Parts: sequence; structure tokens; C-alpha cells
Amino acid sequence: MTTSAETTPPVDDRPKPPVVDERDIDAEAAQTDGPIDEASRDLLVEGVRTALDGRWRSTRDAVRENSDRADLLPDPSRTLAEARAHTLGVLKELSQQGFASAGFAADHGGTGDVGASITSIEMLGYADLSLMVKAGVQWGLWGGAIENLGTERHHEKYVKGTIDLDVLGCFAMTETGHGSNVQALETHATYDRDTQEFVVHSTTPSARKDYIGGAAEHARFAAVFAQLITGGPGEEATSQGVHCFVVPIRDEDGNDLPGVTTSDDGYKGGLAGVDNGRIMFDHVRIPADNLLNKYADVAADGTYHSPIENPNRRFFTMLGTLIRGRISVAATAGAAARKALTIATRYAMVRKQFEAPDGDDEIVILDYLGHQRKLLPLIAKSYAIAFAQNELTGELHDIGRVADDDSVAGRQRQLESDAAGLKAYATWHASHSVNVSREACGGAGYLDENQISIIRGDIDVFTTFEGDNTVMTQLVAKELLSSYADDVRGLSAGGWVRFIAGMARDVVAEKTAVRQVVQTLLESSDEDTDKSNLTDRATQIRLFRNREDHLVRTCAQRLRRATDDENDPFEVFNDAQDHLLKVGSARTERMVLESFVQAIDECDSRSAQQLLGKVCDLYVYSTLEADLSWFMMHRHISVERAKAIRRGVNDLCQELRPYASVLVDAFGIPEALLAAPMIENG
Amino acid sequence: MTTSAETTPPVDDRPKPPVVDERDIDAEAAQTDGPIDEASRDLLVEGVRTALDGRWRSTRDAVRENSDRADLLPDPSRTLAEARAHTLGVLKELSQQGFASAGFAADHGGTGDVGASITSIEMLGYADLSLMVKAGVQWGLWGGAIENLGTERHHEKYVKGTIDLDVLGCFAMTETGHGSNVQALETHATYDRDTQEFVVHSTTPSARKDYIGGAAEHARFAAVFAQLITGGPGEEATSQGVHCFVVPIRDEDGNDLPGVTTSDDGYKGGLAGVDNGRIMFDHVRIPADNLLNKYADVAADGTYHSPIENPNRRFFTMLGTLIRGRISVAATAGAAARKALTIATRYAMVRKQFEAPDGDDEIVILDYLGHQRKLLPLIAKSYAIAFAQNELTGELHDIGRVADDDSVAGRQRQLESDAAGLKAYATWHASHSVNVSREACGGAGYLDENQISIIRGDIDVFTTFEGDNTVMTQLVAKELLSSYADDVRGLSAGGWVRFIAGMARDVVAEKTAVRQVVQTLLESSDEDTDKSNLTDRATQIRLFRNREDHLVRTCAQRLRRATDDENDPFEVFNDAQDHLLKVGSARTERMVLESFVQAIDECDSRSAQQLLGKVCDLYVYSTLEADLSWFMMHRHISVERAKAIRRGVNDLCQELRPYASVLVDAFGIPEALLAAPMIENG
Repeated sequence: MTTSAETTPPVDDRPKPPVVDERDIDAEAAQTDGPIDEASRDLLVEGVRTALDGRWRSTRDAVRENSDRADLLPDPSRTLAEARAHTLGVLKELSQQGFASAGFAADHGGTGDVGASITSIEMLGYADLSLMVKAGVQWGLWGGAIENLGTERHHEKYVKGTIDLDVLGCFAMTETGHGSNVQALETHATYDRDTQEFVVHSTTPSARKDYIGGAAEHARFAAVFAQLITGGPGEEATSQGVHCFVVPIRDEDGNDLPGVTTSDDGYKGGLAGVDNGRIMFDHVRIPADNLLNKYADVAADGTYHSPIENPNRRFFTMLGTLIRGRISVAATAGAAARKALTIATRYAMVRKQFEAPDGDDEIVILDYLGHQRKLLPLIAKSYAIAFAQNELTGELHDIGRVADDDSVAGRQRQLESDAAGLKAYATWHASHSVNVSREACGGAGYLDENQISIIRGDIDVFTTFEGDNTVMTQLVAKELLSSYADDVRGLSAGGWVRFIAGMARDVVAEKTAVRQVVQTLLESSDEDTDKSNLTDRATQIRLFRNREDHLVRTCAQRLRRATDDENDPFEVFNDAQDHLLKVGSARTERMVLESFVQAIDECDSRSAQQLLGKVCDLYVYSTLEADLSWFMMHRHISVERAKAIRRGVNDLCQELRPYASVLVDAFGIPEALLAAPMIENG
Repeated sequence: MTTSAETTPPVDDRPKPPVVDERDIDAEAAQTDGPIDEASRDLLVEGVRTALDGRWRSTRDAVRENSDRADLLPDPSRTLAEARAHTLGVLKELSQQGFASAGFAADHGGTGDVGASITSIEMLGYADLSLMVKAGVQWGLWGGAIENLGTERHHEKYVKGTIDLDVLGCFAMTETGHGSNVQALETHATYDRDTQEFVVHSTTPSARKDYIGGAAEHARFAAVFAQLITGGPGEEATSQGVHCFVVPIRDEDGNDLPGVTTSDDGYKGGLAGVDNGRIMFDHVRIPADNLLNKYADVAADGTYHSPIENPNRRFFTMLGTLIRGRISVAATAGAAARKALTIATRYAMVRKQFEAPDGDDEIVILDYLGHQRKLLPLIAKSYAIAFAQNELTGELHDIGRVADDDSVAGRQRQLESDAAGLKAYATWHASHSVNVSREACGGAGYLDENQISIIRGDIDVFTTFEGDNTVMTQLVAKELLSSYADDVRGLSAGGWVRFIAGMARDVVAEKTAVRQVVQTLLESSDEDTDKSNLTDRATQIRLFRNREDHLVRTCAQRLRRATDDENDPFEVFNDAQDHLLKVGSARTERMVLESFVQAIDECDSRSAQQLLGKVCDLYVYSTLEADLSWFMMHRHISVERAKAIRRGVNDLCQELRPYASVLVDAFGIPEALLAAPMIENG
């Protein structure tokens, strides 16, 4: 191979070929040159897939078996009405198979396996993103609100019907005027002492519930987020903040109930099978019992009480229980990216264009460096994200099974921040990967029969729903900078800046314990990243950690300095917004890398471990390359090392090229769901 | 404003506020602070729009007037069949209005105004991209093939019918197996001496014509690109290369003619109004006269002759005449980006979220730095691209009006390269801008009623058709590196590397004359970019020029060095492919910047000129920021200057914020075509 250097560098940071351990029977499969025999290849695929499948691999296998059917794929010839009816039909089929039980506690009528629940919803993303969203709304959002915000009376009344679809619900949080700023919702639920009812009302046109999945057609019930207005005897009725209420919206024939006006969001950029719609409430009366009252309740006389004193903390505690939706969306985005990349990679291995060196035939396009550079770094990033996702799912599952004490509160808070960060990171990655995959397949990629164009339309809104990505990234940074302080959430931008300015101590990036595998790596390596080799995992981790620390520290200093000058706190915040967003993404990238390192460490197969090591290298090199200007600007990476990183990406692409099919096969996507005539046509 | 710096830089490269010339009556409108009064604002909008409209502003105004109708917008509720029929219906309406005449020479029945023709097709992009593509196929591609590759007999027979739609044609170049590599097409047109016919035949399944607009339903004729197989008396019949033939494919009732099998590409990622399809030929006989014979002909006895000896040069001469399609596609992509950005910007000026500093109301999202950073640099880049596009259109127009001599050949060659580069640059920009615009509008952006999601589906394939963007970018670089050498086109990658290695002299980046305005700027400035201020236009141009020169030089050196070592030429090429692609994009960016500078220089209104100067600064700063790692890695920009550039983008965004509405209004998009309920809803 010729060198990619424009000038010869003094240090060689290019990745080394993997060291083959002769005691390892799979070793030959992990060599990067030469052909791999079929048996070793199968072992390698299995080893990598096992690692990637994670703790809920049996769930994955079960969904794989049930979903290996081309009839599950979206059909663009359906009208909107047909697409919606079809999706509901498949949902009913899933329900009959017991698909939804895992998401609900055993004593509510489920099996109580949160990890399995998220994993199986993610797997639906390989079939049809509309189906995933429809399932996510019914069982994750509506069901999750009942499960996590409700109490026994709600569980008894709704859970069984929710599982078997006798009760079709929707999740009416977002309003036309408010999406990101949920605390400012304009729907009111005013307690009427005389009748012991709540009066649910859309107080302004912008209080209209909007984009609500299920609201256009199918949902009969809504979990409505509204300002709870009440006061005890002699008190003025005021808002106690946003709470969630069960509001019946349609009768059994699908007609709007009195006072409820639903309408249809109509055609969208994708997700044709989801009936998004709008709801206006005109003084709709519901029994007081319909308040989902796990965290707050209203006595008959109107007195409001809650075990959580602080209104902000109460609000965020309630929101926090809904984190499952955010994790599911991120997980599914990962699945969509993997599917598009699999189709594009397979096409690139059969599609030929322009003549090969010997002039007899043309060359497959994956042999071009330019094409490798389009797809392989995205495949590597998909691995990284999938491992991080598995960890988050596991953490959510585990938190739900331990006693509720202070340490759990800390873990929950950390999980919420991590989930926000990964949601943004994974959905941006998915959107980008699907775009690149479409373009990499040329005109064929634009035909719906080859699926990528459909995924492209469907995945687009994942960067928006369950939390706008920019807001999510900023949330990570704000949490980090304020050291997860208890009362900081819900503050305005200016208020938050004032809080930061008032913090006595220096902020440190890492609040949680350093995981053992990272600790061990760091201890056995040189702290000076300039001196250590870039192919060392510890150096890689240090670069990611140092970036995060540097950004957190300088951002905090900057906010403090600016407030010292008595500038307007909002302006201080706003001028630093790009810095803040960078804090958030650097934090998430470090978390993702460390999850990857952990997964490699835990991998049972030596050959899979070696291959994953290379994939991790490509993730690191291409991630550093994408942010090279920052690393150079802040002197974390020298000019020479920067050049070596660019070359390293090229080298790793060429090294991993022979493993491209192994890497996409190991995603384990059911073959029937990967149908694409262009791959047969070449 | 607080400083965005993490540390204070030694040099201040931040853009200065514009100097207001007191003699300038419009001056106050160009100040960046304080309100602009209505009259000054109107003048400013008009001044900027006049500059942006360019030479064919009267054409733009005429199309504006005719297209300010909401019924021209795509309607997602149409079935595929309805969408196609609707598009054809509007095309007929346009035809009756004389829309198509400008694209054809006066003595063929048109009015011969190429610039007006491209400009009016571009303007259709504001209404409906399907309509633009349908018009482009009929009048630009099919019509262009007849006009530019045919001779009198074809002009007489087809031009009038093409203009008034009695003759519906399609452009059958791409095959299932070959898109980018047109020289390897597998359709044959074999001359039959006995009957003086060509026999058109799809020799393999992959020879099937594919993705052809019009082939699924409407086209009755096809301009078919096929290997012309013939030999003179006593010669063996061989391929003379790819030529274009008129092949009737359907009868008046829309049935396939004997030997022709059309089929439908079906549902796509967008462009529902375009009936893309496939064509297979089974020994279809056409009269010899149907060869479009401007550049080559076959005598009755089968002897092939052409005024252009070299087969490669002949092929590329024929292709070169079809450049209009490529320019139209790039121009329309620019229009699509401007439309999406206009809608997103207007939404960002009414959409509020989270509380404002005073706590009474919420803040409009365009006041957030993060949101400004999403939209404003893309608006600036849209301006830059539009000015470059206007120049290319003008050059194509002018070349067609001067005598055909050697200097024209050089200009044509340069234009082809520039058009390839700008096609890639503009369509990638459009795709990206539409994605960003959708996300910037959140859930509302995903509803088709607000248009951006429809544009997103439609624009996607623009990066592919009329030349895959990666191939286009590479073409620019290859042309530059081989100094537009005559016989280099059509060489394999390896062959091209061998050519480069054999070139005696050093390659210089700029082959064409430096334009006067740039020359003047460069002469009056310091050659040392380190010492001169980054806000100086000359320094900006130098940085872009130096990058291009550096990349061209090092790429050539690298290719030569590698071939010296007797490596395989294809591998040498492939290892350098990322370097090569970077040459191409750096070249295009420099061209775009210089067009911008030219347009500012020619702008009549002082206030418009000042505002455009700021917009140009933002284009430069954000373009440098996006490639900062390269500039630092190659020591063209210091660490301090790099930091100043990041801050400069922030500062410019905040400075241009008050002009956001002026900048999008000056795009001059008909108001009826900007309908988006979310802007009313806020």
C-alpha cells in the first residue's frame, strides 16, 4: 500500500495490523489479509453478533424468528388510511403473541422485563418504523404513563386492556405551542370541588395537543399532560405544575366524545402507518380519579399534596419515569441505521463501476477508498452506539429492580442524562447514515423497492420526537456543569447561569465512578498522550476524556467570568451556547467509547474481540478526525498526529474492507427484512 | 456582547461592523444594530434581490408572476397516477404559455435564449420539484439531445412538437448496470446495411434502461444512448462508441411498440409527479436517419465517419453539449435550498420556546445562537452558490453565441468542469440545508402541509442524477491535475495516473485568467496571509487559493512519487482518492467565493453591497471553520486565527440576525409558494 501522507510524519500513529495469537483457534479469521474460510467466517459472525446482541440476546432471537417475514415491510402503495389500518392490524397480531407483556410489572398483568421490552421494540425497527412507533406509543408511552405515573386503580383499570389492545391510548404531551418546554404547557386541568372532577381545557389555540400518535384515528384514551389547577379550602386555585390525566377522547365507534375535538396531522415526511393528530379540549370533565397520582394527589376538598416538596423536582421525577420512550427511540434509530448500512454495504459489494486494474471487468464500488470512507466509519459508529445502547437498557432494567434509595436517585439522574445524550447522538447518526446509504446506492437507492428511501422518510423525525436533539445535547452539558445539582432543573437559561456562577467549587467532568476496565487501562498507560501511541486504547480514552474535561472546565470558567462582568445572564448563556453543545456531545462520545471498550473486554470470542478492536479503532480515528480542528486548536493533538489520524482512517478502512460483510451480517437483521432487488441486479 | 473566546487571542480577526458611508442614502439600512425603517428595508431587499436575480432578472420576474399560485404546490394526497397526470397537465399549461421556446434556436422554432431557459426551469423549483424535473426531461434532456446532437432533419421533425408537447420524449442514457460509466453502456445499435436501419438491442439484463423520467408512462420517444456497431465494406462491425438515437417507444395510445418493453420504477423517495421507468429493447429496428448525427454519421454502406477523430474526444464533445441539464439541476437545487431555508427562517422568527430574559414571554428561537448557527451560514452559502450559478448560466449562454473556435473549446471545457463541481457542491448543500431546515422546525417541519418534508424527499436524488456527486467532484480534480489535457478524458483510473506521472511540468491550479476584480484585490494586499487581516477580502481569497494550490501540487507529487515506485496505478489512484476529492471541492469553493466577490463588486446599491459583504464574510468564515483541521494541519491557519474564526462565525451570526428576514425575502420566492400553516401558528 502506498502511503497516504503528503509528507512523512515523525511518529507513526497508523493502526497496526492485529496481532494474531497462535493459541487462538479462531485467529486466522481475525487476520486482515487473505481470504477467510467459511467456517471461520461463520464463527466470527456469531462471535461478533453475540457481543452485539448483549444481555437480551434471547429476546432478539425470538423477535428475529417471528419477524423474518417480508410482509412486515412497509408498502408504499398503501393509502394513508390503508397504512394506518395495516399497522394497527400488525400491532394486534403482536399483542396476541404476548409481545407487550414484558413492559408491565407482574402484578399488573405483565412479566416485568423492561430490558426485554425495549429490546423487542427496537427489533421492530428492522421491519417497519411505523410499527415500532405505533407499538412505542401504545405500550411504551401511553402504557408507560399508566404504569409509572398511575397507582393501583389505574393499573387495574387499564394495564390488561393496554396489553391486549382493548384500550388504545395516546400520549398527549406536546402542544402546538410547546414541545421542548413542557413546563409551559397551556392545557389546564382545573379541579372542581363540587363535582370532584377535573375540567380539562385547551386555554389557547396554541394549547392544542399536536403531533400525537394515535390521536388522528385509533386512540380512545389519552394521557394528557396539563397544568393541575387547584387550591385547598380558602386558598386561591393555582397551578401546581404539569401533571398527567387519563382523558377518554373517543367512543367505541371512534367518534369524538363531547368537548373533545380531534383532527388529523395528515401527510408527513414518513411514518405513514402512524395516525398523528391533534386534540382540543373544551371544558371536558373527568373524574378526579383520572389523575395519575403516584407522585401527587388532590384531596376531595381540593388540597394538593405530594411526597416531593419541590415542584421542579416533582415534575422532573415524573418526567424521569418516562425515560423508556427516549431509550427506545434511540435504540430503534440504531437499528434503522444498521439496516440501511447493511443494504448499502451489500449493494456496494455487488455493484460494479469503471474498470478494474486488469481491464477485463469493472470494480465493485466498495473497493474504492472513497466508498469505504462513506460506509465503514458509519458501521464502526453503529457498533459503538449499539454497545452504549445495550448498557443504557441494562441500567434502566436494573434500576427498576433495586430498592428506591438515594443511590438509585443518583443512578436515575445519570441515566436520564446519558439517555438524553445518546438519544441525540444515535438519532443524528441514524439520519446521517441513512442519507449516506441512500446516496451510496445511487438511483437504485431512491426506489422504494430497495427500502432505504422509505427508511429515510421514516427516520427523519427521530431527531425531533422524544426530545429535540439540540435540547437533549444541551441538557447533558447543563447537568454536567451543574454537577447534577438537585434544584437546577427547570431553571431558565439565565437562572441556570446564575446558579453556575454561584457554585463554589470547580466542576469536574466525571461524577460517576470510573468503570473498572477503563481504570485499569488508564493506570497502566502514560498520562502524556503525546508520548503514547494513538493505537493504545488508553491513549484513545484519555483523548476523549481530556477533551470533555477541557470543555467542561473552560465552559464553566467562561460562564463565571461573564457573569462577574454583570452581563445579562441570558446573553451570557446564549453567547456560550455553541460551547455548551460541544460539552454535551463530547460527554456523550466519551461515554459511547467507554461502553465499546467494556463490550470488547467482555467479548467471549477471541477472534470477535480482535475484529471489534479494529472496529473500535476506526470509531476512534474517524471520531477524532471529525473534530480534529478542536483537538489541534486546543493543542491536544499535534499537526503530525492529526495527519496520522487522517491516514489511519484510510488504513483502517482498507483493513476492514474484507470484513465488511462479516460486520453487517453480525448485525443479525432478519434476511426477509433486507429485501432489495438492486442487490440481485448488481 | 461577551466574548466567545476561551482565551484572548493576540490578533483580532473578528469581523468589524460595516463602515457606514454617510453619503449613502441607504446607509442606515445597512447598519447591523437598531431597527430598520420600512422604506429602507424595502430598498435593501430590492437591492439584494436585484443582485441575486442576475442577468435574467426579467425572466425571473415573469415566472414569479405566473407561478405565484398555491395550486402549483405538490399535493401529497394524490396517488402516484394522479400526481403524474397532474404534473403533465401543468407542463401542458406551461407549454401553452410559451415556457419552452427559449431553450431552442430561433431557426428551429424557438427564441434561442439559453440563459432564460435555464433560469425559468430553476424557478419552477420554487413550486414543485417534480414539475421542474418533468420540464427538464422534456425540454432540457430530450429536447437538448435533439437540439444539440441532431441535425436539420431532426430539428424539423421534432423541435416544434417537443416545445408544444405533441412529441413527448425521454432521455434514455442510464442503464441498470451503468450510470456513472456511460462509456460502458451495454445497449447496442447495430447498423444493418441491407435495410439501412439500426437494430437497437439490450444485450444483457443490466443493459436495461433504468430510472428514466417519462419512460414509465408518458414518453412516446426516447433519446437512446447505445454503442454504435458498424463497419464499412469488408470491415468487421465494431463499436464506434456511445451515440444517441431517436427510438419511438410507444404508440399514440400509450402501448409499447413491438420489441419495446417498458416498466415502472414505481414508488420513490420523492418526485411523485415524475414517471420514472425502464426500457428493454429486443432487436428494435429504427431508420438510419434516427441517429442524431451532428458529430458522427454512418454512410449507407456502413462506413463510420466523424469530424472528430479521437473517439474519446468525440464522446466527450457529445456529452458536453448536454451540460445544460447539469446546470439546471444545480440551479434548481439552489432554489430548493433557498425555499426550505426561507420557511425555516420565518418559522424561527415566530416560534417561541423557553423564557426570555425578562421572564414575561418566551424567546423566538432565531434569537438563540445555536439556531442562528444552524440557519444563517446556510443562507450565506446559498447566496454564494446562487451567484456562482448565475455566472455559469451566463457563460453557457455566451458560449453558444460566439463563433466555434479554439478559445471556445477551452471555455467549454472549463465550463464543463465548473458545472460538474458546482452541481455536486450545490446539490449537497441543498440536501443538507433541507435536512437542517426540517429539523429546525421540529414536529411541524415533518408535516407535509409545511412543505419542507416534501422538498426533503424530492431533493434527495439531486445528488445522484445528472452525475453522481462524488464522481463529479473527482472529475473536477482530474481535469485540474491533468491541466485539461485533451486526451485524458475516458482513461481508466490507472491510465489517468500513468498520464499524470508522465506530465513533464508542474501542475498549476489556475488555468483560466484571473478575473479582474480578484486580480485587483490581490495586488493591493499582503501576500503573507498570516500578517493580513482575515476580514480583508484579499486575505480570504488567498486562503482559498492557497488551499487549492497546495492540494493540487501535493496530490500531483504524491501520484508521481507513488508511480515512480512501480506500484499498481489503480492502487495509487485509489489510495489517493480522498486527496483527489478534496482537490475537487477546494477548487469549487474557490470558484464560488470569487463569483460572490464579483457579484458584490457589480452590485449597484451601496446598502445591498454592504450587507452582501457581511454575508460573504459569513460564507468565508463558516467555510473555513468547516475545514479548519486542514488549514491548521498544513499551517495555513494558526491556532489563534482558528479560534478567531470560530468566534467570528458566532459574531457574524449575531450581526446578521436582524437581517435574517431581509436575506430570505430577497430570495424573491413567490409568496403563495411559501405557504406553511406553522408560520401562522407560531
